[in-house]
Amino acid sequence: MILLLIPTFGGAEVWRRAFAAAMPELEVRVWPELGNAGEIEAVALGVPPAGALRKLSSLRLIVSLTAGTDGLLRDPDLPAVPIVRSGDPSGDAMMNETTLLHVLFHHRHMPDYLRAQARCEWIKRPITPARERKVGVMGLGMIGLAAAKMLASFGFAVAGWVRHPRPGGEIEIFSGADRLAAFLNRSEILVNLLPLTEDTRGIVRAETLAMLPAGAAVINLGRGDHVVEADLMAALDSGHLAAATLDVYPVEPLPGDSPLWRHPKITVMPHVARRLLPEDVAPRICEILRQFRAGAALTGLVDRKQGY
Amino acid sequence: MILLLIPTFGGAEVWRRAFAAAMPELEVRVWPELGNAGEIEAVALGVPPAGALRKLSSLRLIVSLTAGTDGLLRDPDLPAVPIVRSGDPSGDAMMNETTLLHVLFHHRHMPDYLRAQARCEWIKRPITPARERKVGVMGLGMIGLAAAKMLASFGFAVAGWVRHPRPGGEIEIFSGADRLAAFLNRSEILVNLLPLTEDTRGIVRAETLAMLPAGAAVINLGRGDHVVEADLMAALDSGHLAAATLDVYPVEPLPGDSPLWRHPKITVMPHVARRLLPEDVAPRICEILRQFRAGAALTGLVDRKQGY
Repeated sequence: MILLLIPTFGGAEVWRRAFAAAMPELEVRVWPELGNAGEIEAVALGVPPAGALRKLSSLRLIVSLTAGTDGLLRDPDLPAVPIVRSGDPSGDAMMNETTLLHVLFHHRHMPDYLRAQARCEWIKRPITPARERKVGVMGLGMIGLAAAKMLASFGFAVAGWVRHPRPGGEIEIFSGADRLAAFLNRSEILVNLLPLTEDTRGIVRAETLAMLPAGAAVINLGRGDHVVEADLMAALDSGHLAAATLDVYPVEPLPGDSPLWRHPKITVMPHVARRLLPEDVAPRICEILRQFRAGAALTGLVDRKQGY
Repeated sequence: MILLLIPTFGGAEVWRRAFAAAMPELEVRVWPELGNAGEIEAVALGVPPAGALRKLSSLRLIVSLTAGTDGLLRDPDLPAVPIVRSGDPSGDAMMNETTLLHVLFHHRHMPDYLRAQARCEWIKRPITPARERKVGVMGLGMIGLAAAKMLASFGFAVAGWVRHPRPGGEIEIFSGADRLAAFLNRSEILVNLLPLTEDTRGIVRAETLAMLPAGAAVINLGRGDHVVEADLMAALDSGHLAAATLDVYPVEPLPGDSPLWRHPKITVMPHVARRLLPEDVAPRICEILRQFRAGAALTGLVDRKQGY
């Protein structure tokens, strides 16, 4: 089997070493060195370079290097082959870390303290026990579920919102559009980890922000297009929301003239929620290739209709 | 038995309710309502108001509401009775939370990102797995040990520094003055949770800061007098240190003309590491009173010579 890798992170040599260790018999070609493109049966990539998929006439399997497959699914040349995500089904340690950092940042009123420091002002804000802090996680996929469980194990009062009903286990679950208001009503810190689909685009907008309790904070770790930025800024300016942290934007890098940069209640993070390491990801891609060769069920298979 | 409470936190009524629930037979007087001061056998307090201890002629026991007893031990009227700290021997959840927040803040380069936002600049700093991040905790008392274990359970490469040798368990231990350099040499993020004693006053100074690796961060959650502020600012200005977070200061509130407020690499927190709750602390004070009445060993007994 010949795999084409179009890296979104990591250097070609690091990837080659990682694949050589995980599956010595695999022939790996690294974009843009295609060789005979018609021989390539599997590709691992993020958002495809324009026209790249058209060249792969024998393609039988696509492995997504990213958890969000919205960019891949928009490719006009996408062939009708299985798409599998290479993320660790048990979640992502760096994403858990990022989620906890930003939840703690708002839970402990860091935006207020940083602004007070700029005024040389000694202020006191209430310190709330974690068990009394209601955190809401939108999206309980591989990444969101692990993050929600981690927040719960740290002591926060966590609830999750998902599209389809499912048993809760460690965390309270709200499911479906008709339970979104109840979920938002109780979420003092809202964390977005949804996939971007036509149903979730713009889900964080004036109407939903108004459902959050006064003084709530919003953390967007999903996609930029989940948030209507003008509505977010209006909710911050009105005083309804206390603060927000954004890590993702419709256009990245965030343009220098975006009003987000200078908004006093927004923390702008430059899409640094996590870093994938070839030595972690290559073995998971090889496991998917083994499942595929054996005709077994594919872990992480994407439902194109759902969009994730 | 009659207990005098001199609250450093919480209102009188909240304390009264908490004591009534924990030990209904206890007579509690709340400062400044002393009644007949000669009847008072136990006092629970932080730093004593000037002259307060002199009035308590029958005092047999002092319970410290704070983990640091440096202010109490400096009282010129301190009688020769046992001093016991009321802190939870298993550590303090809010202090763990504060420690993790500030360690994550530096681990994930938040000071750099906040400064970059002020310049409207999209920057990328390396994202390091927690297992590769060496955190050093100075002081492994009730609070420090619990914080160090929590950081280790979160995946950080944690070591602790203490005065006397002890077995390590989950974390690597460096002990004694002759191992301080080795401990500092490996600590990329240094957290101070030491008690303030004559030995530890000014322990974070030019000489010790120089032992930290280049690019290190310093977090002071102990006492203001642990840090020589001018030396810290010099180490930041020279570029040897990346950033620092301070929560405590020799004089609080931090005076408006302190250069710390406007230092670009220092995050000034207004002594908000934790909040004690009467409903958590009153039962522990009652447990100490029961031990005392029964003539049993006192949990949390302070060694006056050591200073903690």
